[in-house]
Amino acid sequence: MTDQLTATAARDSRRRSMDDQLRRRASSVIPGGMYGHQSAGPLPPEYPQFMRSGRGARIWDVDGNEYIDLMCSYGPVVLGHRHPAVERAAAAQAELADCQNGPGAVMVELAELLVGTVQHADWAMFAKNGTDATTICCTIARAHTGRQKILVAAGAYHGAAPWCTPRLAGVTEADRANLGHYTFNDLASVRAAVTAAGPDLAGIVVSPFKHDAGFDQELVDPAFARGLRELCTAAGAALILDDVRCGFRLHLGSSWEPIGVLPDLSAWSKAIANGHPLAAVLGSGAFADAAASIFVTGSFWFSAAAMAAAIATIGALRDEDAIAVMDHMGTRLRAGILDQAAARGLEIRYTGPPAMPYLTFAGDHGHELGTTFAAAAMRAGAYLHPRHNWFISAAMTEADLAAALTATDEGFAAAANRLAAST
Amino acid sequence: MTDQLTATAARDSRRRSMDDQLRRRASSVIPGGMYGHQSAGPLPPEYPQFMRSGRGARIWDVDGNEYIDLMCSYGPVVLGHRHPAVERAAAAQAELADCQNGPGAVMVELAELLVGTVQHADWAMFAKNGTDATTICCTIARAHTGRQKILVAAGAYHGAAPWCTPRLAGVTEADRANLGHYTFNDLASVRAAVTAAGPDLAGIVVSPFKHDAGFDQELVDPAFARGLRELCTAAGAALILDDVRCGFRLHLGSSWEPIGVLPDLSAWSKAIANGHPLAAVLGSGAFADAAASIFVTGSFWFSAAAMAAAIATIGALRDEDAIAVMDHMGTRLRAGILDQAAARGLEIRYTGPPAMPYLTFAGDHGHELGTTFAAAAMRAGAYLHPRHNWFISAAMTEADLAAALTATDEGFAAAANRLAAST
Repeated sequence: MTDQLTATAARDSRRRSMDDQLRRRASSVIPGGMYGHQSAGPLPPEYPQFMRSGRGARIWDVDGNEYIDLMCSYGPVVLGHRHPAVERAAAAQAELADCQNGPGAVMVELAELLVGTVQHADWAMFAKNGTDATTICCTIARAHTGRQKILVAAGAYHGAAPWCTPRLAGVTEADRANLGHYTFNDLASVRAAVTAAGPDLAGIVVSPFKHDAGFDQELVDPAFARGLRELCTAAGAALILDDVRCGFRLHLGSSWEPIGVLPDLSAWSKAIANGHPLAAVLGSGAFADAAASIFVTGSFWFSAAAMAAAIATIGALRDEDAIAVMDHMGTRLRAGILDQAAARGLEIRYTGPPAMPYLTFAGDHGHELGTTFAAAAMRAGAYLHPRHNWFISAAMTEADLAAALTATDEGFAAAANRLAAST
Repeated sequence: MTDQLTATAARDSRRRSMDDQLRRRASSVIPGGMYGHQSAGPLPPEYPQFMRSGRGARIWDVDGNEYIDLMCSYGPVVLGHRHPAVERAAAAQAELADCQNGPGAVMVELAELLVGTVQHADWAMFAKNGTDATTICCTIARAHTGRQKILVAAGAYHGAAPWCTPRLAGVTEADRANLGHYTFNDLASVRAAVTAAGPDLAGIVVSPFKHDAGFDQELVDPAFARGLRELCTAAGAALILDDVRCGFRLHLGSSWEPIGVLPDLSAWSKAIANGHPLAAVLGSGAFADAAASIFVTGSFWFSAAAMAAAIATIGALRDEDAIAVMDHMGTRLRAGILDQAAARGLEIRYTGPPAMPYLTFAGDHGHELGTTFAAAAMRAGAYLHPRHNWFISAAMTEADLAAALTATDEGFAAAANRLAAST
C-alpha cells in the first residue's frame, strides 16, 4: 500500500511539474494566475492549466501527459487538432499575407460560401470573438427596428461583454438597462417578456438548445422555436440565433434548420475555422441595410489566414461528412457511458446532442460526484469537464473512443467509491 | 493626347479588373460591400479594396499593383510585412498547437516580457481586439472603484463597441449613460468633467496623442498628462492610457514613459504581434484584484500562435532598434514632404510623431486637396490615407523612402493643379 501511494505520488508530481512551475510564474504576472473560461483554478488539481500540443483527437499538456480531447478547446476544434487541409490553407494564405490594408479575396469567397451553406443567410460580416458576433446582432436589430429592448433567456451565456458577462463585477446597471428575460422552452414567458418590452422590442436572442454551464442541457422544443419565430415576425423584431457554440457541430447550416426555423440574424464563431480566430454574423436580406448602417470593426477582423482556414473547414466538414461522424461517435460515447453508469448502479443524466453532451449525477447539486468523476477520468486520460458541456470532434477514431470509455469507466469507479463512502 | 488618354484608361482598367470583380461579388454578400475602418467605399477609386500580399514595406493589391506601405494595415505591421523572425515563431508555435483547452507556456512568457518591458505594468491580460482591451480597462476601473463614470476626450476613437463606436446607428442612450467628455490637452475641461462625475468617477481614458481621424494631430502637452495623473490619483480613479494605436510604435514601453507619466491601466493591440491577432491589458499591482474579479474571455484569447508572434515582435523591436528606425525614417519622410510642399508653394500641416504622421492642406476643410493628393500618390505607388493618420514601419529602406517621396511629389503636383484650376 505504501509502495502504491509512493508510486502514485511520484507519478502525480511528475505529471505536473512544468504546469505547477508555470502556474507559479503566472500568479505573478496574470491577475488571479489565469482568467476566463479556460481558468483551471476552479477545477480539480488533475486539470493542467497549460497545454502543449494536439493532433486529431489527442492532446498533450505541458508535462507531456496525453488525453483524448472531449473539450475541443471549448468548441473551436471540430475537425480535430491540426487538420491537414485547414492548416495548409491557413499557412498558404499567411505566406502571402494575413493582416493587410484591406481584406483578401478570401473574404468574398468565405462570405459566398457561408451564404451558400447557411439557409437564412443572404450576407456575412466577420469579427474575432463570439461576443463580437452576438453584440453586432443586437446592434443590427436595434438599427433595423429603431428600438432598444433585447430579450435573452435567463441564465444563458451570450458572451463576456458588460451587457452579457455572467459575472457582474465592473458591470453597470446601464449596461443591461435594455435587456428583458424569458425562460428557455417556455413560450408563455417569452410572451410576457414581449409584452413587457412593448413597442420597444428590437430582438430576441436564443441559443439552439439550452447549454447553460453547470446545468443539465435541454434540447429545444420545436414548437417553442416556431413560437419565437412567429412572435418576432409579428412584432417586427429580429430573431437572433446565437450559434456561437453549436454552429457547424450539429448541422452544416444554422442549428435550427433541421426543425425548419430560420432566424433573421445569427452569431457564429468557435468551430467555423477549426480553431483559427474568427467570428461571423449572418443575416437575411431585410437586415442588410441596417447591417451596413452600423460601424463595427477591429484591427484583425479582415485578416486573411483565418478566413482561408474557415473556407477549408467548411469544405472538410462537407467532404468528410463530419457532422454525421460527430453525431455517430457522440452517440456511441453516450451508449458506452450509459452502460458504464448502469453497470455500477449510478443514476446519471447525459443530456444535449451527442456531439455536445453533458453529464451530471442524480442529486449531485454541488457537483461533488461530477467533479470526482471528471478528476478520475482526467487521470485516466480523457479531457472532459465537470461543469461545462463537452465537445466531440470528427477526428475521433475507434481507438480514441475506446480510450475515452476506459477513462470514463475509471471516472465512474471513483464516483461509485465516493458515493459508497458517503452513504 | 488621345493616345495618352487611351493608354491611361487601359492602364487604369488593367490596374483594377480583379478588384472591381471582387467588389461586385462582395456587394451581393457583404453589407454595403464592405464595412469598418478598411472600407474603400469612401476613398477615391484609386484605392483597391482587396489586397493580395506584402513583404517588408512593399504591398500588392489583388491586381498586382505595388505600393510602398505607409498605412501598415492601419497600424498592426510595425516591423514590416512577413517579418522572418515573427513568422517563424508563429509558425513553429502553430505547428505544435494554437487554440487549445488552455493557454500554452507562451502566455506566461509573454506576460513576463510585457511586465519587464512596460514600466507601469505589473500584470497582463490578453484578448483579440483593441476594443476588447479598452472595454476591459473600463470594467476593471469600475470593479476597482465601485463607481461608474468614465471620461473620454470628445472625438477620440477608443473602439467600435456600442459604448465607443463613432457611428450611433444601433446604439442606445444607456450604452453611453456613464460617459463624460473632456477636451484633449485642456486640463480645465477635464477638471469640469471630473467635477460633473462627482463621487462616481471610475476612470479617465486618454490617447497618447490626439489622433482623431480627419483632423490635424496634436501631441500631448506633458503638463496635461501630469495633470490627468494627479486628478486620477486625487480622485482614486484609474488613469487609462489607450495605447492601442500608438503602442510599440513610438516607444518600447507605454507611450507616455518618455514624458514620465504612468497610467494605472493601458490598452494594447495593433502592433504588439506585428499583425497577428492579439490585444492586451496591462495594469499596476493595485488593480490586479479588480482585474481578477471580472469575467472576460473569448474563444481565441488564449491561442498560442499570436502570443509567440508577440514575443518575437517585442524581441525584434528591441534587437533591431526598430523604434529609432521608424522615428528616423519618419523624420526623413517628413523632411522630404515638407520640402516638396514648399517647392510647390503649398501650405500643408504635417502633424503627429514622425512614425505616425498625418497630412492636411491649409483651408482644405472638405479634404478635396487631401483626397486629390492621396489619389495621385496612390497612382504613383504610395499607399497612404487622406483622412486617417499614416504608419511607418521599421522595414522601410532607403529605396522605399525614395519611392514614397516620388509618389508624394506626384500627389503634390496633382494638388497644385487642382488648386490652380480652382483659383
